[in-house]
Amino acid sequence: MDALSELISLALYEDSGFGDITTDPLMCNSRPGTGIIKAKEPLVLSGMKVAEQVFRTVDPDVEIRSDFRNADRIREGDTVMTVKGGLKAMLKSERIALNFLQRLSGIATFTRSIVDHLDNREVRVVDTRKTTPGWRLIEKAAVCDGGGYNHRMSLFDGVLIKDNHITVAGGIRNAVAAIRPKLSHLIKIEVEAATMAQVEEALDAGAEVIMLDNMGISQMKKAVDLIDHRVPVEASGNITRDNIREVAATGVDMISMGALTNQAGAVDLSMRIHV
Amino acid sequence: MDALSELISLALYEDSGFGDITTDPLMCNSRPGTGIIKAKEPLVLSGMKVAEQVFRTVDPDVEIRSDFRNADRIREGDTVMTVKGGLKAMLKSERIALNFLQRLSGIATFTRSIVDHLDNREVRVVDTRKTTPGWRLIEKAAVCDGGGYNHRMSLFDGVLIKDNHITVAGGIRNAVAAIRPKLSHLIKIEVEAATMAQVEEALDAGAEVIMLDNMGISQMKKAVDLIDHRVPVEASGNITRDNIREVAATGVDMISMGALTNQAGAVDLSMRIHV
Amino acid sequence: MDALSELISLALYEDSGFGDITTDPLMCNSRPGTGIIKAKEPLVLSGMKVAEQVFRTVDPDVEIRSDFRNADRIREGDTVMTVKGGLKAMLKSERIALNFLQRLSGIATFTRSIVDHLDNREVRVVDTRKTTPGWRLIEKAAVCDGGGYNHRMSLFDGVLIKDNHITVAGGIRNAVAAIRPKLSHLIKIEVEAATMAQVEEALDAGAEVIMLDNMGISQMKKAVDLIDHRVPVEASGNITRDNIREVAATGVDMISMGALTNQAGAVDLSMRIHV
Amino acid sequence: MDALSELISLALYEDSGFGDITTDPLMCNSRPGTGIIKAKEPLVLSGMKVAEQVFRTVDPDVEIRSDFRNADRIREGDTVMTVKGGLKAMLKSERIALNFLQRLSGIATFTRSIVDHLDNREVRVVDTRKTTPGWRLIEKAAVCDGGGYNHRMSLFDGVLIKDNHITVAGGIRNAVAAIRPKLSHLIKIEVEAATMAQVEEALDAGAEVIMLDNMGISQMKKAVDLIDHRVPVEASGNITRDNIREVAATGVDMISMGALTNQAGAVDLSMRIHV
Amino acid sequence: MDALSELISLALYEDSGFGDITTDPLMCNSRPGTGIIKAKEPLVLSGMKVAEQVFRTVDPDVEIRSDFRNADRIREGDTVMTVKGGLKAMLKSERIALNFLQRLSGIATFTRSIVDHLDNREVRVVDTRKTTPGWRLIEKAAVCDGGGYNHRMSLFDGVLIKDNHITVAGGIRNAVAAIRPKLSHLIKIEVEAATMAQVEEALDAGAEVIMLDNMGISQMKKAVDLIDHRVPVEASGNITRDNIREVAATGVDMISMGALTNQAGAVDLSMRIHV
Amino acid sequence: MDALSELISLALYEDSGFGDITTDPLMCNSRPGTGIIKAKEPLVLSGMKVAEQVFRTVDPDVEIRSDFRNADRIREGDTVMTVKGGLKAMLKSERIALNFLQRLSGIATFTRSIVDHLDNREVRVVDTRKTTPGWRLIEKAAVCDGGGYNHRMSLFDGVLIKDNHITVAGGIRNAVAAIRPKLSHLIKIEVEAATMAQVEEALDAGAEVIMLDNMGISQMKKAVDLIDHRVPVEASGNITRDNIREVAATGVDMISMGALTNQAGAVDLSMRIHV
Repeated sequence: MDALSELISLALYEDSGFGDITTDPLMCNSRPGTGIIKAKEPLVLSGMKVAEQVFRTVDPDVEIRSDFRNADRIREGDTVMTVKGGLKAMLKSERIALNFLQRLSGIATFTRSIVDHLDNREVRVVDTRKTTPGWRLIEKAAVCDGGGYNHRMSLFDGVLIKDNHITVAGGIRNAVAAIRPKLSHLIKIEVEAATMAQVEEALDAGAEVIMLDNMGISQMKKAVDLIDHRVPVEASGNITRDNIREVAATGVDMISMGALTNQAGAVDLSMRIHV
Repeated sequence: MDALSELISLALYEDSGFGDITTDPLMCNSRPGTGIIKAKEPLVLSGMKVAEQVFRTVDPDVEIRSDFRNADRIREGDTVMTVKGGLKAMLKSERIALNFLQRLSGIATFTRSIVDHLDNREVRVVDTRKTTPGWRLIEKAAVCDGGGYNHRMSLFDGVLIKDNHITVAGGIRNAVAAIRPKLSHLIKIEVEAATMAQVEEALDAGAEVIMLDNMGISQMKKAVDLIDHRVPVEASGNITRDNIREVAATGVDMISMGALTNQAGAVDLSMRIHV
Repeated sequence: MDALSELISLALYEDSGFGDITTDPLMCNSRPGTGIIKAKEPLVLSGMKVAEQVFRTVDPDVEIRSDFRNADRIREGDTVMTVKGGLKAMLKSERIALNFLQRLSGIATFTRSIVDHLDNREVRVVDTRKTTPGWRLIEKAAVCDGGGYNHRMSLFDGVLIKDNHITVAGGIRNAVAAIRPKLSHLIKIEVEAATMAQVEEALDAGAEVIMLDNMGISQMKKAVDLIDHRVPVEASGNITRDNIREVAATGVDMISMGALTNQAGAVDLSMRIHV
Repeated sequence: MDALSELISLALYEDSGFGDITTDPLMCNSRPGTGIIKAKEPLVLSGMKVAEQVFRTVDPDVEIRSDFRNADRIREGDTVMTVKGGLKAMLKSERIALNFLQRLSGIATFTRSIVDHLDNREVRVVDTRKTTPGWRLIEKAAVCDGGGYNHRMSLFDGVLIKDNHITVAGGIRNAVAAIRPKLSHLIKIEVEAATMAQVEEALDAGAEVIMLDNMGISQMKKAVDLIDHRVPVEASGNITRDNIREVAATGVDMISMGALTNQAGAVDLSMRIHV
Repeated sequence: MDALSELISLALYEDSGFGDITTDPLMCNSRPGTGIIKAKEPLVLSGMKVAEQVFRTVDPDVEIRSDFRNADRIREGDTVMTVKGGLKAMLKSERIALNFLQRLSGIATFTRSIVDHLDNREVRVVDTRKTTPGWRLIEKAAVCDGGGYNHRMSLFDGVLIKDNHITVAGGIRNAVAAIRPKLSHLIKIEVEAATMAQVEEALDAGAEVIMLDNMGISQMKKAVDLIDHRVPVEASGNITRDNIREVAATGVDMISMGALTNQAGAVDLSMRIHV
Repeated sequence: MDALSELISLALYEDSGFGDITTDPLMCNSRPGTGIIKAKEPLVLSGMKVAEQVFRTVDPDVEIRSDFRNADRIREGDTVMTVKGGLKAMLKSERIALNFLQRLSGIATFTRSIVDHLDNREVRVVDTRKTTPGWRLIEKAAVCDGGGYNHRMSLFDGVLIKDNHITVAGGIRNAVAAIRPKLSHLIKIEVEAATMAQVEEALDAGAEVIMLDNMGISQMKKAVDLIDHRVPVEASGNITRDNIREVAATGVDMISMGALTNQAGAVDLSMRIHV
């Protein structure tokens, strides 16, 4: 079983693994019905396939239709999804499907608001590994749906040498020298630098991307000038809607924000059932 | 394997299931080290045992100490947890442990702020089923750590007759009549009411708890007067920090807020490693 | 995967996980056939959906028909289920499907016989947690199919304060006082009492249900009089077909019997295959 | 994870997967205690390692001692097991451990009573595949603990050609001819025979064991004489304590009884906790 | 979930569990296509159902056709399988399906070449437990597809007393005496013998099959003469294509070769996709 | 549970999930013993931690020692591992541990022989995705132990645009243009080229690595000259020990060989037990 199916199983089990003592006595046998999911506020859509998989896990014969898909901008009142199938299964899956859809669309919506606010197509807004445990892939997809970009997915598809690694290795040069010979030829090395000296050491050591960690705007600007387009530059640390335009103006290529996935609230969606 | 262990497995797998291509080449064999987790803002703690289980899953011999426990109020700069063990395992578990701790403490902190703001010990602030799929139990525990109370955990440990059930059953009376004979003698029936008429019907039908759904303040007050302490009353729908005191003043016994679990952002914690 | 599917997987795996060395060489490819399950003694039916799920797990295209459903009284010779599909799959699932059906119908049949013997609609015959590990939900459903009622499903959907808890807490009052503030508003507290003094203490402490544990008939009668309909009363311990009418006559509301699930033998059903 | 661990996980999950709402509020942290399991009736012991594994799954540090082991005859009042460890874990595992121990010892006790009643060392009392789904291995071990013997464990470690196979293959000879060339050289072929003609056909076809299915005593005697020790003979079908001695007197080598595993009730054991 | 499904899940997960970053951006939605699997060298086919299950796991609606089945001899250039379905799913399953098919057909092809070379229908070429962990059943099936025979599948469907067991038991006689009374009546005892003395001891002890372990040709001949058809004889140890005819000429009934499963290389198959 | 633990579980289950009917009757309780694993031919070691994990899964208290580690060259007769623990567990894990060790060391040994034969430190010998399903990570580690290098681990940590993708996208340029904007900044794009024209198109499109697919030596040489060190070059297709030096002489940077993982046979190791 794949990871998403396992997460959905966990979610269904924790909600209705021992039955639904309200609904079960009301319907010996299920009867058909229609559920209509509507947006109760403007939002950017994400998680449509996840929600669909939730419904389908409980009722393989459910019919699902929608005029929208992930990344679409939705207005308040829009019908996001129409679900036709057995009522009993629908009442079991409703809350779980909505919980997924609300959270993932929340991330897409928040990301979109940051990207729109930045209003700079040259700079990528990228996510981090600060995702909800168990939700890595679907949250990263939600960031894309909101117009953001993905940093590495995990510890195995990108090298990022951080302060702890530098300490352990005894310097950036040592770290790069140890990693390069073991590395696939398709993966690049990014090095985190907190000072000008570290930026220079990283360049010398052969870093292919440099992350400026927690630098102030003017220091960031100096670092960008120093690097001078030799490698792409990522800004990271304490970046918010308030300062993101200034950060972008320093000339960095990417701006990473943990907030995309760990500060976005759920958006409001509801499902009404028609018998 | 229990549900929390499965969630932790999923989380570790999605982050380091294929190795850590930065750290692995730096250490053929692991060496011992110490990780110190500090709060970077004031917060209410939750998820300590979850974080501990993450570290222990990767390194069964890790030593963990703390002066704090769940529900404690933490100041910026406090050392929340000290972890001693193999560095390689620690670098693998760090992000996942923090992601759990940050989100769960975020919920506890947000709940605490609502409870403190309400400042009314007679009224319970309760959660809902709007939790992160896969996280039901640990998020509900975080609400308790923040001074809130739990509504039912799931569809099987409490009856809540909502509008959809009323439609399906053909009225509140029918719904209660269908459910009561199948119900364990240890579980109560709560009925959602949106109008005075429904409140009366619910009382007549033998509802043991009544939920006032999306009522305005004055209507809520009338409903409370009508019910007159015969059964406990829960207020629900569109309740925020701004109106919660007013809601409480109507005399309801419980106020439920989905926001406790689906609007709380992660709080800021970081781990620094000492070799 | 849900718990029942896991149990069915375990059951199929332990029987045919490495193939069926008798049947496999007889049929390179499967061919269609019909299996007819008949009752070889009178019984009350339970487990029809479980048996169906067993057949469907091995052969998703199997067709299943029946004139009966759970809780029906079946006569010797009745055709309980007709299964149409591939012979190979059918021979693999037959024994497992029957093993489920025989044991669950055995519980329903035994429960029905107790309920019929009691012949008192005012008193509920309820089950316990003495179920076959792995079978909790389906055995509790079988008790219902036999006309019995379910006590709590598990340790999380009902409070039952027993002698061990009373010892640990230092008295009934302390135990109730510790549990009440943590408890969902939809769940009641039941207290086990072995003496009149404990009955009184339980009432004082706010017990919402009282279980009379292992009391003799006359003591039980006194306890019922003392409680005087203030809360429902459950009789428990050493209750058999022989004394159940006397117990009911004391005026208790519920009688719990572990025997419903742990003394009921399998009823006799067999499947014959037609090519 | 092996099959028994999965069954134990299922069993723990269905009982306490969402917590123990009675015990948890009584003990913030666990404290040490001792549980003593006593027999409340005479019995033959089985399932000691299973019960131990249950306790150990919840509390890996639990200490378990016993003066008895599987297959021992226990008197009423004997202390079967002493468990030392955390009270919270103990209260969680108690019911599940007992449910295993009671059912498995029930099978051993019933088997022992049959074997003792038969009082004939020349004849093996053997079990069947009529076991509780999910419990095959531990129930078959319980039969051994009671002095019985195991027939094949499953469809893959023994060939048993039954009426349905004979129909499908077009006769016993065809069935044996199809199976023999595919069969491992370490496994024997048993053929079910309901008539003298089938006994002769089975012998001719090279059956290495013959099962006399549902024959009357006199017919069985004739069949045994006809086979005349050329291959071992098993009696099967409708054999009870009442007729088992007669069946044995016909000279068969084995007597199989589904009742060993599907009619045995749980024996009575209880655990008392000392703080 | 059964063992093969788990292996396929593992295989898909390790290859595309985090997506296919080459294909995914090329196709927002999948489109239909056809994949044609051809043999690039002559081979004996095995694993057709496994490959089919791989395709079906990723795309339940895929259509699969073939003119061949397991055990068929395939010529270079033959189309082994035609797969019609969604392109995206096909590109995800292709490599895994081929990896199964290539390895299993490799085993069938190698086995066939040994069997053909031996050219002696009286002697069975049998496999061992030296299989790829996780692949036991499908590799043993591949041996059959190549004209070989299966020894026991595992430690539980055949007794094989080897040198270590003899040491532990204190001699062959003791070992057989300890095992026989616990053994199902459908399973035989094979004893490994390295010397003439051991052969004699094995016969005396009641061994039902004797394995001659690592004997030279002339010693083997002597052992076969000594045994004189009383029980079947298996030759084992250091048997290769070069000496297998000589071994067969000694008169043994079976020749076991670990090489069948642990020396066979993958055969060459490729899949081309047509849009 | 992580993927390797699952594979080990599958492997143990298929071998001894239903017990070990030879060993179990010989030892009621286990007794201590020592197992010594020796090389029966020269080899390069791989899989030491996997073998250790197998032993530890069955017996958590086993003690394991070795003078060697992965990548070491072992001579015939060397003691590779010494295992101390319970005999029963050891006899259960022996075959599985050896099956892992033999196959993985086989891959390391074969890779080492190719690398040594090539004798050119400038050129990397790299593996492919032609690995045993379920074994991806451990086989790729074995290639490293043998002195080879890893290509991408899977479909998600490297882009490789192959003929099928080119067809689907309508040319190399289109494919690169579609993939680049969705790609993490830490991952490179490799393009497969079968002709000079494709090499040029790939360079123009911005390929960061070029794979020369199935080219002859002279054509390969021309391609290397054309690329002229602008990007790294990989040779692929039909490369064997016989032509690998010639291929290397063309100036390519990497040579990939599926044979490393799908043609390597198991090396010979055996374990002897001392009581």
